[in-house]
Amino acid sequence: MDHEKGKPLFQKVALIGIGLIGSSLARAIKKKGLASEVVTCARSEATRNTVKKLGLVDAVYDTPAEAVRDADLIILCTPVSTYDDLAAAMAPSLKAGAIVSDVGSVKESVIRDVGQHLPDGVHFVPGHPIAGTEHSGPEAGFAELFEGRWCILTPVVGTDAQAIAKVSGFWTALGSMVEIMTPHRHDKVLAITSHLPHLIAYTIVGTATDLEETDQNDVIKFSAGGFRDFTRIAASDPIMWRDVFLNNREAVLEMLQRFTEDLTVLQRAVRWGEGDVLEDLFRRTREVRRGIVDAHQAGTFDAREPDEDPKKQ
Amino acid sequence: MDHEKGKPLFQKVALIGIGLIGSSLARAIKKKGLASEVVTCARSEATRNTVKKLGLVDAVYDTPAEAVRDADLIILCTPVSTYDDLAAAMAPSLKAGAIVSDVGSVKESVIRDVGQHLPDGVHFVPGHPIAGTEHSGPEAGFAELFEGRWCILTPVVGTDAQAIAKVSGFWTALGSMVEIMTPHRHDKVLAITSHLPHLIAYTIVGTATDLEETDQNDVIKFSAGGFRDFTRIAASDPIMWRDVFLNNREAVLEMLQRFTEDLTVLQRAVRWGEGDVLEDLFRRTREVRRGIVDAHQAGTFDAREPDEDPKKQ
Ligand SMILES: NC(=O)c1ccc[n+]([C@@H]2O[C@H](COP(=O)([O-])OP(=O)(O)OC[C@H]3O[C@@H](n4cnc5c(N)ncnc54)[C@H](OP(=O)(O)O)[C@@H]3O)[C@@H](O)[C@H]2O)c1
Ligand SMILES: NC(=O)c1ccc[n+]([C@@H]2O[C@H](COP(=O)([O-])OP(=O)(O)OC[C@H]3O[C@@H](n4cnc5c(N)ncnc54)[C@H](OP(=O)(O)O)[C@@H]3O)[C@@H](O)[C@H]2O)c1
Repeated sequence: MDHEKGKPLFQKVALIGIGLIGSSLARAIKKKGLASEVVTCARSEATRNTVKKLGLVDAVYDTPAEAVRDADLIILCTPVSTYDDLAAAMAPSLKAGAIVSDVGSVKESVIRDVGQHLPDGVHFVPGHPIAGTEHSGPEAGFAELFEGRWCILTPVVGTDAQAIAKVSGFWTALGSMVEIMTPHRHDKVLAITSHLPHLIAYTIVGTATDLEETDQNDVIKFSAGGFRDFTRIAASDPIMWRDVFLNNREAVLEMLQRFTEDLTVLQRAVRWGEGDVLEDLFRRTREVRRGIVDAHQAGTFDAREPDEDPKKQ
Repeated sequence: MDHEKGKPLFQKVALIGIGLIGSSLARAIKKKGLASEVVTCARSEATRNTVKKLGLVDAVYDTPAEAVRDADLIILCTPVSTYDDLAAAMAPSLKAGAIVSDVGSVKESVIRDVGQHLPDGVHFVPGHPIAGTEHSGPEAGFAELFEGRWCILTPVVGTDAQAIAKVSGFWTALGSMVEIMTPHRHDKVLAITSHLPHLIAYTIVGTATDLEETDQNDVIKFSAGGFRDFTRIAASDPIMWRDVFLNNREAVLEMLQRFTEDLTVLQRAVRWGEGDVLEDLFRRTREVRRGIVDAHQAGTFDAREPDEDPKKQ
């Protein structure tokens, strides 16, 4: 169901922080006409200037307290370690009935950090769009980022049903599919689908950079055999990912433990030349890929280089 | 330097096996006019029929002995575990002065398996194009696969310099850059740039498929957060990859050992909340990505879904 441009869902939306995700939201909200007014705040002057230059929003403030004034929907779009302070700073300026949401990649810690500061009469509907790229900053965003992707909402029991419905309708209007689950389940599922893959990609790229220098040059030259895909993931924002691991420690460590056990089995199979163990696993994993392609969550990969025309990238 | 169509480098090229790599070679050789005649052999009737239907080559044979007759250049394009038998079968039919090459992803074992069968007067120039996709079979190939990619040649000491130059010129004409190195170095470099990434991708996708069923559904649904990239790699051909691990055991195990040590350090950092250890590594790995993009070996990734028009995929 397409949202018709011209029927704003919110009077005023405030984006707290405006990097890849925040700026994609700003672009999509404008494009789809989902709010009469979109404002943001950013801590650095560089970002504030870029956002003004790009004309992404209606007003850019220095502080969250100024940005949230009179806003109906406030979305935190910064690394999750900043949520505690930002929520404390904006809480006194929130209007009664406002909805606070976020896009953070972990959810239990966010509910703890943000929830404690919010006054009565303000609704909290935590969210996480399962969409992103390895690029950061307001210039990296694009309006279509959330189209066809899932957005997970993790409201705590007792949250106003209307507030949940409004946030859900917002993401649907952005082109996303919405799923509601507990924060605990979210953090477990994301540990295997996102956090562990990132941890492993960072590790293997680190292992390669510890090789002697001539080997390192070869690693870059001959990366098209698989390694390059890991480097793309391992190019993701360092602060954002540090925060994810610090805030989803238990689920990540549990999945890492399972992974390590499985890797040990494969290591043994390689050492002892057990071809059938390898082949069995390799056949099983092919099926998973098919499931993802069928679910239209595969993205596009082309073995060739990007088109040299920057407009087409 | 572009090869001008119409000046064939070889009279007759024989491709032994014709899946992703063999069919890409057939298409590229035809497109660039690098041979007066291209023939192939395939073990299965299905593949032989597909190749005829697609019109990829001038003749399709049932056996390698028939295919190599009078050929100037023979390229093995099957999984490396088959090389021993295939080389034995074709050896008696090779013409004097012929050049035998291959595209196998490991090189020390290939030199052992193939070298022993080749008669005097036949030149052996092992090769490995660092180019591929996760798809298999003759329909998956395309003529541009090797453009802008490296091809590594690993001739043993004493190989006829003219034969090496001819194979090198062949890959250059296909649009590749050529590097010559020892088979030992090749196997070590590829262990980190290709073999270990595949082993790890297979492992993590396997770990996910061992979760309870409801979790597995969520893994597919929410795979866009990183996991999907691992599934693409883990969808690669099971037999080809089984063979790679069985034939590059030592180098893979050594890199795996280094990786496991590094992963243990990160695991500890997550457990003890050492944010600076994580952040330091995550900053370092970003640089590697930059190197690969600058070297034009990054390929193209788009977070959006493939174009629905199959002709454009
Ligand atoms: N990237 C993804 O793939 C992805 C996907 C889903 C969810 N998320 C979540 O989205 C959130 C933002 O990620 P992103 O990719 O958009 O990051 P980003 O591009 O790096 O942008 C981060 C934004 O947060 C601001 N910020 C950083 N530290 C701050 C601080 N201490 N105080 C105030 N503002 C601060 C930055 O301001 P300056 O520009 O002024 O430094 C910038 O506006 C994170 O919570 C992340 O978990 C990311
Ligand atoms: N895929 C990559 O990304 C990549 C990259 C660089 C190098 N390589 C190397 O290229 C070679 C071929 O890989 P590929 O991706 O082209 O594989 P593929 O698409 O699966 O094709 C394999 C070909 O080998 C034939 N074959 C398999 N087993 C055989 C046997 N026992 N006897 C005779 N023929 C047999 C198949 O015949 P049927 O169709 O009749 O079964 C098919 O023609 C491998 O050595 C691999 O290491 C692959």
